[in-house]
Amino acid sequence: MRFERELTIEWGDCDEAGIVFYPNYFYWFDCTFQAMLRSKGLSQREVRSRYGAVTPLVDVGAVFRSPVSYDDVVTIQAELQEWAERRMRIAYTVRCGNRLVATGHELRAWAVPRAEGGLKGAVIPEDFKRLFA
Amino acid sequence: MRFERELTIEWGDCDEAGIVFYPNYFYWFDCTFQAMLRSKGLSQREVRSRYGAVTPLVDVGAVFRSPVSYDDVVTIQAELQEWAERRMRIAYTVRCGNRLVATGHELRAWAVPRAEGGLKGAVIPEDFKRLFA
Amino acid sequence: MRFERELTIEWGDCDEAGIVFYPNYFYWFDCTFQAMLRSKGLSQREVRSRYGAVTPLVDVGAVFRSPVSYDDVVTIQAELQEWAERRMRIAYTVRCGNRLVATGHELRAWAVPRAEGGLKGAVIPEDFKRLFA
Amino acid sequence: MRFERELTIEWGDCDEAGIVFYPNYFYWFDCTFQAMLRSKGLSQREVRSRYGAVTPLVDVGAVFRSPVSYDDVVTIQAELQEWAERRMRIAYTVRCGNRLVATGHELRAWAVPRAEGGLKGAVIPEDFKRLFA
Repeated sequence: MRFERELTIEWGDCDEAGIVFYPNYFYWFDCTFQAMLRSKGLSQREVRSRYGAVTPLVDVGAVFRSPVSYDDVVTIQAELQEWAERRMRIAYTVRCGNRLVATGHELRAWAVPRAEGGLKGAVIPEDFKRLFA
Repeated sequence: MRFERELTIEWGDCDEAGIVFYPNYFYWFDCTFQAMLRSKGLSQREVRSRYGAVTPLVDVGAVFRSPVSYDDVVTIQAELQEWAERRMRIAYTVRCGNRLVATGHELRAWAVPRAEGGLKGAVIPEDFKRLFA
Repeated sequence: MRFERELTIEWGDCDEAGIVFYPNYFYWFDCTFQAMLRSKGLSQREVRSRYGAVTPLVDVGAVFRSPVSYDDVVTIQAELQEWAERRMRIAYTVRCGNRLVATGHELRAWAVPRAEGGLKGAVIPEDFKRLFA
Repeated sequence: MRFERELTIEWGDCDEAGIVFYPNYFYWFDCTFQAMLRSKGLSQREVRSRYGAVTPLVDVGAVFRSPVSYDDVVTIQAELQEWAERRMRIAYTVRCGNRLVATGHELRAWAVPRAEGGLKGAVIPEDFKRLFA
Protein backbone atom coordinates (compact mmCIF):
# COMPACT_ATOMS: atom_id res chain seq x y z
CA MET A 1 0.00 0.00 0.00
CA ARG A 2 1.20 3.44 -0.89
CA PHE A 3 0.25 6.58 0.94
CA GLU A 4 1.21 10.11 0.04
CA ARG A 5 1.09 13.47 1.72
CA GLU A 6 2.22 16.92 0.80
CA LEU A 7 3.90 19.49 3.00
CA THR A 8 5.40 22.92 2.72
CA ILE A 9 8.92 23.45 4.03
CA GLU A 10 8.65 25.99 6.81
CA TRP A 11 11.05 28.74 7.86
CA GLY A 12 11.81 26.96 11.11
CA ASP A 13 12.68 23.71 9.31
CA CYS A 14 15.76 25.16 7.65
CA ASP A 15 19.22 25.89 8.92
CA GLU A 16 21.67 28.70 8.33
CA ALA A 17 22.63 27.17 4.98
CA GLY A 18 19.02 27.73 3.92
CA ILE A 19 18.21 24.05 3.51
CA VAL A 20 16.22 21.62 5.65
CA PHE A 21 17.95 20.66 8.88
CA TYR A 22 18.06 16.93 8.35
CA PRO A 23 16.48 15.53 11.56
CA ASN A 24 13.24 17.10 10.34
CA TYR A 25 13.02 14.46 7.62
CA PHE A 26 12.54 11.85 10.32
CA TYR A 27 9.87 13.95 12.00
CA TRP A 28 8.08 13.98 8.63
CA PHE A 29 8.57 10.23 8.19
CA ASP A 30 6.94 9.64 11.56
CA CYS A 31 4.10 12.06 10.77
CA THR A 32 3.53 10.32 7.46
CA PHE A 33 3.37 6.92 9.18
CA GLN A 34 0.77 8.32 11.58
CA ALA A 35 -1.19 9.82 8.69
CA MET A 36 -1.08 6.47 6.90
CA LEU A 37 -2.56 4.82 10.00
CA ARG A 38 -5.22 7.55 10.16
CA SER A 39 -6.12 6.95 6.51
CA LYS A 40 -7.25 3.48 7.63
CA GLY A 41 -9.12 4.67 10.68
CA LEU A 42 -6.22 3.84 12.98
CA SER A 43 -3.76 5.84 15.07
CA GLN A 44 -1.12 5.02 17.67
CA ARG A 45 -3.86 5.09 20.30
CA GLU A 46 -6.27 3.02 18.24
CA VAL A 47 -3.48 0.48 17.57
CA ARG A 48 -2.97 0.39 21.31
CA SER A 49 -6.64 -0.03 22.23
CA ARG A 50 -7.59 -2.37 19.38
CA TYR A 51 -4.49 -4.60 19.34
CA GLY A 52 -2.83 -3.79 22.68
CA ALA A 53 0.30 -3.05 20.66
CA VAL A 54 2.86 -0.34 20.01
CA THR A 55 5.21 0.06 17.06
CA PRO A 56 8.67 1.06 18.37
CA LEU A 57 11.43 1.95 15.94
CA VAL A 58 14.21 -0.55 15.45
CA ASP A 59 16.24 0.90 12.61
CA VAL A 60 15.89 4.08 10.54
CA GLY A 61 17.84 5.75 7.80
CA ALA A 62 17.81 8.31 5.05
CA VAL A 63 19.75 9.16 1.90
CA PHE A 64 19.76 12.77 0.78
CA ARG A 65 19.74 13.37 -2.98
CA SER A 66 19.08 17.07 -3.45
CA PRO A 67 18.29 19.89 -1.04
CA VAL A 68 15.01 21.66 -0.44
CA SER A 69 14.44 25.06 1.07
CA TYR A 70 11.89 27.24 2.78
CA ASP A 71 8.61 27.50 0.80
CA ASP A 72 9.27 24.42 -1.32
CA VAL A 73 6.34 22.04 -1.48
CA VAL A 74 7.32 18.38 -1.21
CA THR A 75 5.41 15.13 -1.38
CA ILE A 76 6.28 12.24 0.91
CA GLN A 77 5.30 8.82 -0.26
CA ALA A 78 5.21 5.94 2.23
CA GLU A 79 5.07 2.31 1.30
CA LEU A 80 4.69 -0.62 3.68
CA GLN A 81 6.92 -3.45 2.48
CA GLU A 82 8.99 -6.47 3.47
CA TRP A 83 6.66 -7.79 6.14
CA ALA A 84 8.39 -9.99 8.65
CA GLU A 85 6.37 -11.76 11.28
CA ARG A 86 7.18 -9.18 13.95
CA ARG A 87 8.44 -6.28 11.90
CA MET A 88 7.23 -3.86 9.27
CA ARG A 89 9.34 -1.72 7.02
CA ILE A 90 8.09 1.59 5.72
CA ALA A 91 9.96 3.04 2.74
CA TYR A 92 9.75 6.79 2.23
CA THR A 93 10.36 8.83 -0.90
CA VAL A 94 10.47 12.62 -0.78
CA ARG A 95 10.06 14.55 -4.03
CA CYS A 96 9.87 18.20 -4.96
CA GLY A 97 7.98 18.18 -8.23
CA ASN A 98 9.78 15.51 -10.25
CA ARG A 99 13.05 15.98 -8.44
CA LEU A 100 14.06 13.26 -5.97
CA VAL A 101 14.94 14.87 -2.63
CA ALA A 102 15.47 11.97 -0.25
CA THR A 103 14.67 8.35 0.39
CA GLY A 104 14.44 6.74 3.77
CA HIS A 105 13.04 3.93 5.85
CA GLU A 106 11.68 3.03 9.23
CA LEU A 107 11.80 -0.53 10.52
CA ARG A 108 9.17 -0.84 13.23
CA ALA A 109 8.57 -3.72 15.59
CA TRP A 110 5.16 -4.89 16.63
CA ALA A 111 5.34 -5.11 20.40
CA VAL A 112 3.06 -5.64 23.36
CA PRO A 113 3.68 -4.55 26.95
CA ARG A 114 4.83 -7.25 29.36
CA ALA A 115 3.10 -7.59 32.71
CA GLU A 116 6.44 -7.05 34.47
CA GLY A 117 7.20 -3.89 32.46
CA GLY A 118 8.96 -3.37 29.14
CA LEU A 119 7.86 -4.69 25.76
CA LYS A 120 8.12 -7.94 23.87
CA GLY A 121 7.85 -8.53 20.16
CA ALA A 122 4.63 -10.04 18.86
CA VAL A 123 3.25 -11.33 15.57
CA ILE A 124 1.58 -8.63 13.48
CA PRO A 125 -2.18 -9.39 13.33
CA GLU A 126 -3.51 -10.51 9.96
CA ASP A 127 -6.28 -7.91 9.88
CA PHE A 128 -3.77 -5.11 10.46
CA LYS A 129 -1.69 -6.42 7.57
CA ARG A 130 -4.73 -6.63 5.33
CA LEU A 131 -5.48 -2.94 5.89
CA PHE A 132 -2.14 -2.02 4.34
CA ALA A 133 -1.87 -4.78 1.74
CA MET B 1 -7.26 40.63 7.85
CA ARG B 2 -7.85 37.19 9.24
CA PHE B 3 -6.16 34.06 8.06
CA GLU B 4 -6.83 30.54 9.19
CA ARG B 5 -5.13 27.22 8.84
CA GLU B 6 -5.79 23.75 10.15
CA LEU B 7 -3.31 21.24 11.47
CA THR B 8 -3.26 17.83 13.06
CA ILE B 9 -1.37 17.38 16.32
CA GLU B 10 1.37 14.87 15.62
CA TRP B 11 2.85 12.17 17.83
CA GLY B 12 6.16 14.01 18.02
CA ASP B 13 4.48 17.25 19.13
CA CYS B 14 3.37 15.83 22.48
CA ASP B 15 5.24 15.16 25.68
CA GLU B 16 5.10 12.40 28.22
CA ALA B 17 1.94 13.89 29.72
CA GLY B 18 0.30 13.25 26.34
CA ILE B 19 -0.30 16.91 25.58
CA VAL B 20 1.42 19.33 23.22
CA PHE B 21 4.90 20.37 24.37
CA TYR B 22 4.31 24.10 24.51
CA PRO B 23 7.20 25.51 22.38
CA ASN B 24 5.47 23.88 19.42
CA TYR B 25 2.70 26.47 19.63
CA PHE B 26 5.25 29.12 18.65
CA TYR B 27 6.50 27.01 15.76
CA TRP B 28 2.87 26.89 14.56
CA PHE B 29 2.45 30.64 15.07
CA ASP B 30 5.50 31.25 12.90
CA CYS B 31 4.29 28.78 10.26
CA THR B 32 0.89 30.47 10.23
CA PHE B 33 2.50 33.88 9.75
CA GLN B 34 4.45 32.48 6.81
CA ALA B 35 1.30 30.92 5.37
CA MET B 36 -0.50 34.25 5.73
CA LEU B 37 2.29 35.89 3.72
CA ARG B 38 2.04 33.14 1.12
CA SER B 39 -1.73 33.66 0.84
CA LYS B 40 -0.87 37.14 -0.50
CA GLY B 41 1.85 35.96 -2.85
CA LEU B 42 4.59 36.86 -0.41
CA SER B 43 7.10 34.92 1.71
CA GLN B 44 10.07 35.84 3.88
CA ARG B 45 12.21 35.77 0.73
CA GLU B 46 9.74 37.79 -1.31
CA VAL B 47 9.51 40.37 1.50
CA ARG B 48 13.27 40.50 1.36
CA SER B 49 13.56 40.88 -2.39
CA ARG B 50 10.56 43.18 -2.90
CA TYR B 51 10.99 45.45 0.13
CA GLY B 52 14.56 44.71 1.23
CA ALA B 53 13.13 43.98 4.65
CA VAL B 54 12.96 41.30 7.30
CA THR B 55 10.45 40.88 10.14
CA PRO B 56 12.35 39.98 13.34
CA LEU B 57 10.45 39.07 16.48
CA VAL B 58 10.38 41.62 19.27
CA ASP B 59 7.93 40.15 21.76
CA VAL B 60 5.90 36.95 21.82
CA GLY B 61 3.55 35.27 24.23
CA ALA B 62 0.87 32.67 24.69
CA VAL B 63 -1.87 31.82 27.16
CA PHE B 64 -2.92 28.19 27.39
CA ARG B 65 -6.61 27.53 28.02
CA SER B 66 -7.13 23.82 27.49
CA PRO B 67 -4.84 21.02 26.36
CA VAL B 68 -4.76 19.21 23.04
CA SER B 69 -3.34 15.80 22.26
CA TYR B 70 -2.04 13.61 19.50
CA ASP B 71 -4.54 13.27 16.60
CA ASP B 72 -6.55 16.34 17.57
CA VAL B 73 -7.25 18.68 14.68
CA VAL B 74 -6.89 22.35 15.55
CA THR B 75 -7.43 25.58 13.66
CA ILE B 76 -5.07 28.49 14.09
CA GLN B 77 -6.46 31.89 13.27
CA ALA B 78 -4.06 34.78 12.72
CA GLU B 79 -5.07 38.42 12.70
CA LEU B 80 -2.86 41.38 11.88
CA GLN B 81 -3.69 44.21 14.25
CA GLU B 82 -2.39 47.26 16.10
CA TRP B 83 -0.17 48.56 13.33
CA ALA B 84 2.54 50.84 14.56
CA GLU B 85 4.74 52.64 12.13
CA ARG B 86 7.56 50.10 12.45
CA ARG B 87 5.80 47.20 14.12
CA MET B 88 3.06 44.72 13.38
CA ARG B 89 1.22 42.59 15.88
CA ILE B 90 -0.21 39.24 14.92
CA ALA B 91 -2.80 37.78 17.28
CA TYR B 92 -3.28 34.01 17.21
CA THR B 93 -6.22 31.95 18.38
CA VAL B 94 -6.02 28.16 18.51
CA ARG B 95 -9.25 26.19 18.69
CA CYS B 96 -10.14 22.52 18.68
CA GLY B 97 -13.69 22.50 17.35
CA ASN B 98 -15.43 25.16 19.44
CA ARG B 99 -13.08 24.75 22.38
CA LEU B 100 -10.51 27.51 22.93
CA VAL B 101 -7.06 25.96 23.25
CA ALA B 102 -4.67 28.90 23.33
CA THR B 103 -4.23 32.50 22.39
CA GLY B 104 -0.97 34.18 21.58
CA HIS B 105 0.79 36.98 19.80
CA GLU B 106 3.88 37.90 17.87
CA LEU B 107 5.11 41.47 17.74
CA ARG B 108 7.33 41.81 14.67
CA ALA B 109 9.52 44.71 13.65
CA TRP B 110 9.93 45.85 10.08
CA ALA B 111 13.68 46.11 9.63
CA VAL B 112 16.21 46.66 6.89
CA PRO B 113 19.89 45.65 6.89
CA ARG B 114 22.39 48.42 7.59
CA ALA B 115 25.43 48.79 5.36
CA GLU B 116 27.70 48.32 8.38
CA GLY B 117 25.90 45.14 9.47
CA GLY B 118 22.95 44.58 11.76
CA LEU B 119 19.40 45.80 11.22
CA LYS B 120 17.53 49.03 11.75
CA GLY B 121 13.80 49.59 12.11
CA ALA B 122 11.95 51.04 9.12
CA VAL B 123 8.46 52.22 8.30
CA ILE B 124 6.17 49.47 7.03
CA PRO B 125 5.36 50.17 3.36
CA GLU B 126 1.80 51.21 2.60
CA ASP B 127 1.31 48.58 -0.09
CA PHE B 128 2.34 45.82 2.33
CA LYS B 129 -0.19 47.12 4.85
CA ARG B 130 -2.91 47.27 2.22
CA LEU B 131 -2.43 43.58 1.45
CA PHE B 132 -3.36 42.67 4.99
CA ALA B 133 -5.93 45.39 5.72
CA MET C 1 16.19 31.35 44.33
CA ARG C 2 18.28 31.84 41.23
CA PHE C 3 19.52 29.07 39.04
CA GLU C 4 21.80 29.36 36.05
CA ARG C 5 22.87 27.13 33.23
CA GLU C 6 25.02 27.57 30.19
CA LEU C 7 24.41 26.28 26.69
CA THR C 8 25.95 26.48 23.27
CA ILE C 9 23.76 27.53 20.36
CA GLU C 10 23.71 24.61 17.96
CA TRP C 11 23.60 24.57 14.17
CA GLY C 12 20.11 23.10 14.21
CA ASP C 13 18.81 25.84 16.51
CA CYS C 14 19.26 28.59 13.93
CA ASP C 15 17.24 29.57 10.92
CA GLU C 16 18.16 30.74 7.46
CA ALA C 17 18.86 34.24 8.80
CA GLY C 18 21.62 32.66 10.90
CA ILE C 19 19.98 33.46 14.23
CA VAL C 20 18.13 31.33 16.74
CA PHE C 21 14.68 30.25 15.56
CA TYR C 22 12.67 31.72 18.42
CA PRO C 23 10.55 28.77 19.63
CA ASN C 24 13.84 27.25 20.80
CA TYR C 25 14.03 29.84 23.56
CA PHE C 26 10.97 28.25 25.13
CA TYR C 27 12.49 24.79 24.84
CA TRP C 28 15.48 26.17 26.77
CA PHE C 29 13.23 27.83 29.34
CA ASP C 30 11.53 24.51 29.95
CA CYS C 31 14.88 22.66 30.13
CA THR C 32 16.16 25.25 32.61
CA PHE C 33 13.07 24.80 34.80
CA GLN C 34 13.68 21.05 34.78
CA ALA C 35 17.35 21.57 35.62
CA MET C 36 16.37 23.87 38.48
CA LEU C 37 14.13 21.10 39.85
CA ARG C 38 16.97 18.61 39.47
CA SER C 39 19.33 20.92 41.36
CA LYS C 40 17.04 20.34 44.37
CA GLY C 41 16.75 16.60 43.89
CA LEU C 42 13.42 16.90 42.14
CA SER C 43 12.15 16.32 38.59
CA GLN C 44 8.74 16.25 36.92
CA ARG C 45 8.46 12.61 37.93
CA GLU C 46 9.62 13.22 41.47
CA VAL C 47 7.14 16.11 41.79
CA ARG C 48 4.52 13.68 40.63
CA SER C 49 5.45 10.86 42.99
CA ARG C 50 6.23 13.03 46.03
CA TYR C 51 3.41 15.56 45.75
CA GLY C 52 1.03 13.90 43.28
CA ALA C 53 1.23 17.12 41.27
CA VAL C 54 2.07 18.44 37.83
CA THR C 55 3.03 21.96 36.79
CA PRO C 56 1.17 22.85 33.56
CA LEU C 57 1.91 26.10 31.77
CA VAL C 58 -0.66 28.84 32.02
CA ASP C 59 1.04 31.81 30.39
CA VAL C 60 4.45 32.26 28.75
CA GLY C 61 6.25 35.05 26.97
CA ALA C 62 9.57 36.36 25.78
CA VAL C 63 11.10 39.65 24.71
CA PHE C 64 14.02 39.51 22.31
CA ARG C 65 16.75 42.12 22.79
CA SER C 66 19.64 41.05 20.57
CA PRO C 67 20.24 38.01 18.40
CA VAL C 68 22.53 35.05 18.98
CA SER C 69 23.97 32.67 16.45
CA TYR C 70 25.45 29.23 16.02
CA ASP C 71 28.43 28.61 18.35
CA ASP C 72 27.52 31.43 20.74
CA VAL C 73 27.57 30.41 24.38
CA VAL C 74 24.70 31.80 26.41
CA THR C 75 23.73 31.64 30.05
CA ILE C 76 20.11 31.27 31.08
CA GLN C 77 19.20 32.45 34.53
CA ALA C 78 15.93 31.34 36.09
CA GLU C 79 14.35 32.93 39.11
CA LEU C 80 11.26 31.72 40.92
CA GLN C 81 9.21 34.74 41.92
CA GLU C 82 5.73 36.09 42.62
CA TRP C 83 4.37 33.02 44.35
CA ALA C 84 0.63 32.85 44.31
CA GLU C 85 -1.14 30.16 46.23
CA ARG C 86 -1.61 27.96 43.16
CA ARG C 87 0.82 29.49 40.74
CA MET C 88 4.53 30.01 40.35
CA ARG C 89 6.24 32.41 38.00
CA ILE C 90 9.70 31.71 36.66
CA ALA C 91 11.54 34.67 35.16
CA TYR C 92 14.26 33.91 32.63
CA THR C 93 17.17 36.04 31.50
CA VAL C 94 19.37 34.98 28.60
CA ARG C 95 22.80 36.62 28.24
CA CYS C 96 25.71 36.19 25.87
CA GLY C 97 28.64 37.45 27.92
CA ASN C 98 27.41 40.78 29.26
CA ARG C 99 24.99 41.31 26.41
CA LEU C 100 21.29 40.85 27.16
CA VAL C 101 19.77 38.49 24.60
CA ALA C 102 16.24 37.85 25.84
CA THR C 103 14.00 37.86 28.86
CA GLY C 104 10.99 35.66 29.36
CA HIS C 105 8.66 34.03 31.81
CA GLU C 106 6.65 30.93 32.48
CA LEU C 107 3.61 31.01 34.72
CA ARG C 108 2.97 27.48 35.93
CA ALA C 109 0.02 26.14 37.85
CA TRP C 110 0.29 23.58 40.60
CA ALA C 111 -2.28 20.98 39.71
CA VAL C 112 -3.40 17.52 40.79
CA PRO C 113 -5.25 14.95 38.72
CA ARG C 114 -8.96 14.62 39.41
CA ALA C 115 -10.48 11.18 39.92
CA GLU C 116 -12.85 11.80 36.99
CA GLY C 117 -10.00 12.87 34.69
CA GLY C 118 -8.46 16.27 34.00
CA LEU C 119 -6.60 18.44 36.50
CA LYS C 120 -7.55 20.89 39.20
CA GLY C 121 -5.45 23.64 40.76
CA ALA C 122 -4.02 23.01 44.22
CA VAL C 123 -2.07 24.94 46.83
CA ILE C 124 1.70 24.72 46.39
CA PRO C 125 3.13 22.75 49.34
CA GLU C 126 5.21 24.73 51.82
CA ASP C 127 8.19 22.36 51.64
CA PHE C 128 8.33 22.72 47.86
CA LYS C 129 8.34 26.49 48.24
CA ARG C 130 11.07 26.35 50.88
CA LEU C 131 13.35 24.46 48.46
CA PHE C 132 13.28 27.41 46.07
CA ALA C 133 13.08 30.27 48.59
CA MET D 1 39.71 10.16 16.82
CA ARG D 2 37.01 9.66 19.40
CA PHE D 3 35.02 12.42 20.95
CA GLU D 4 32.46 12.13 23.71
CA ARG D 5 29.82 14.33 25.19
CA GLU D 6 27.20 13.89 27.84
CA LEU D 7 23.64 15.09 27.81
CA THR D 8 20.52 14.89 29.90
CA ILE D 9 17.30 13.76 28.25
CA GLU D 10 14.87 16.65 28.57
CA TRP D 11 11.12 16.64 29.09
CA GLY D 12 10.56 18.05 25.62
CA ASP D 13 12.64 15.31 23.99
CA CYS D 14 10.22 12.54 24.91
CA ASP D 15 6.90 11.50 23.45
CA GLU D 16 3.68 10.29 24.96
CA ALA D 17 5.19 6.83 25.47
CA GLY D 18 7.68 8.49 27.80
CA ILE D 19 10.71 7.70 25.64
CA VAL D 20 12.85 9.83 23.36
CA PHE D 21 11.10 10.84 20.13
CA TYR D 22 13.58 9.38 17.70
CA PRO D 23 14.39 12.32 15.38
CA ASN D 24 16.06 13.90 18.41
CA TYR D 25 18.87 11.34 18.16
CA PHE D 26 19.86 12.92 14.85
CA TYR D 27 19.77 16.39 16.36
CA TRP D 28 22.20 15.08 18.99
CA PHE D 29 24.39 13.43 16.37
CA ASP D 30 24.67 16.74 14.53
CA CYS D 31 25.37 18.63 17.78
CA THR D 32 28.06 16.10 18.66
CA PHE D 33 29.69 16.54 15.26
CA GLN D 34 29.72 20.29 15.79
CA ALA D 35 31.16 19.84 19.28
CA MET D 36 33.85 17.56 17.86
CA LEU D 37 34.78 20.31 15.38
CA ARG D 38 34.82 22.84 18.23
CA SER D 39 37.13 20.61 20.26
CA LYS D 40 39.70 21.17 17.49
CA GLY D 41 39.11 24.90 17.24
CA LEU D 42 36.82 24.53 14.24
CA SER D 43 33.12 25.03 13.60
CA GLN D 44 30.89 24.99 10.54
CA ARG D 45 31.78 28.65 10.03
CA GLU D 46 35.48 28.11 10.58
CA VAL D 47 35.42 25.19 8.12
CA ARG D 48 33.76 27.56 5.70
CA SER D 49 36.21 30.43 6.16
CA ARG D 50 39.39 28.33 6.47
CA TYR D 51 38.67 25.74 3.77
CA GLY D 52 35.82 27.32 1.81
CA ALA D 53 33.92 24.09 2.39
CA VAL D 54 30.70 22.74 3.82
CA THR D 55 29.89 19.22 4.98
CA PRO D 56 26.42 18.26 3.70
CA LEU D 57 24.84 15.01 4.78
CA VAL D 58 24.70 12.20 2.24
CA ASP D 59 23.43 9.26 4.24
CA VAL D 60 22.39 8.83 7.87
CA GLY D 61 21.00 6.05 9.99
CA ALA D 62 20.40 4.78 13.48
CA VAL D 63 19.66 1.50 15.21
CA PHE D 64 17.77 1.67 18.50
CA ARG D 65 18.76 -0.89 21.13
CA SER D 66 17.06 0.20 24.34
CA PRO D 67 14.94 3.21 25.25
CA VAL D 68 15.85 6.20 27.38
CA SER D 69 13.55 8.57 29.18
CA TYR D 70 13.32 12.01 30.67
CA ASP D 71 16.10 12.72 33.21
CA ASP D 72 18.37 9.92 31.96
CA VAL D 73 21.94 11.01 31.39
CA VAL D 74 23.50 9.59 28.22
CA THR D 75 26.92 9.80 26.65
CA ILE D 76 27.30 10.12 22.90
CA GLN D 77 30.58 8.96 21.46
CA ALA D 78 31.54 10.06 17.95
CA GLU D 79 34.28 8.46 15.90
CA LEU D 80 35.52 9.63 12.52
CA GLN D 81 36.21 6.60 10.36
CA GLU D 82 36.32 5.19 6.84
CA TRP D 83 37.75 8.26 5.17
CA ALA D 84 37.09 8.39 1.48
CA GLU D 85 38.65 11.08 -0.62
CA ARG D 86 35.51 13.22 -0.58
CA ARG D 87 33.54 11.70 2.26
CA MET D 88 33.80 11.24 5.98
CA ARG D 89 31.80 8.84 8.09
CA ILE D 90 31.06 9.58 11.71
CA ALA D 91 29.95 6.64 13.82
CA TYR D 92 27.89 7.40 16.93
CA THR D 93 27.31 5.30 20.02
CA VAL D 94 24.80 6.36 22.65
CA ARG D 95 25.04 4.80 26.10
CA CYS D 96 23.19 5.23 29.37
CA GLY D 97 25.71 4.05 31.95
CA ASN D 98 26.87 0.72 30.54
CA ARG D 99 23.69 0.10 28.65
CA LEU D 100 23.80 0.51 24.86
CA VAL D 101 20.98 2.81 23.77
CA ALA D 102 21.60 3.42 20.08
CA THR D 103 24.20 3.40 17.36
CA GLY D 104 24.16 5.56 14.29
CA HIS D 105 26.13 7.18 11.55
CA GLU D 106 26.42 10.26 9.39
CA LEU D 107 28.11 10.16 6.02
CA ARG D 108 29.14 13.69 5.14
CA ALA D 109 30.51 15.01 1.90
CA TRP D 110 33.24 17.60 1.67
CA ALA D 111 31.87 20.17 -0.76
CA VAL D 112 32.68 23.60 -2.07
CA PRO D 113 30.28 26.13 -3.59
CA ARG D 114 30.32 26.41 -7.39
CA ALA D 115 30.49 29.82 -8.99
CA GLU D 116 27.24 29.12 -10.82
CA GLY D 117 25.46 28.06 -7.62
CA GLY D 118 25.11 24.69 -5.91
CA LEU D 119 27.92 22.57 -4.49
CA LYS D 120 30.47 20.16 -5.86
CA GLY D 121 32.39 17.47 -4.01
CA ALA D 122 36.03 18.16 -3.19
CA VAL D 123 38.97 16.29 -1.69
CA ILE D 124 39.16 16.57 2.10
CA PRO D 125 42.28 18.60 2.99
CA GLU D 126 45.12 16.69 4.64
CA ASP D 127 45.40 19.10 7.56
CA PHE D 128 41.70 18.69 8.36
CA LYS D 129 42.14 14.93 8.35
CA ARG D 130 45.18 15.16 10.59
CA LEU D 131 43.18 17.04 13.22
CA PHE D 132 40.85 14.07 13.60
CA ALA D 133 43.32 11.23 13.03
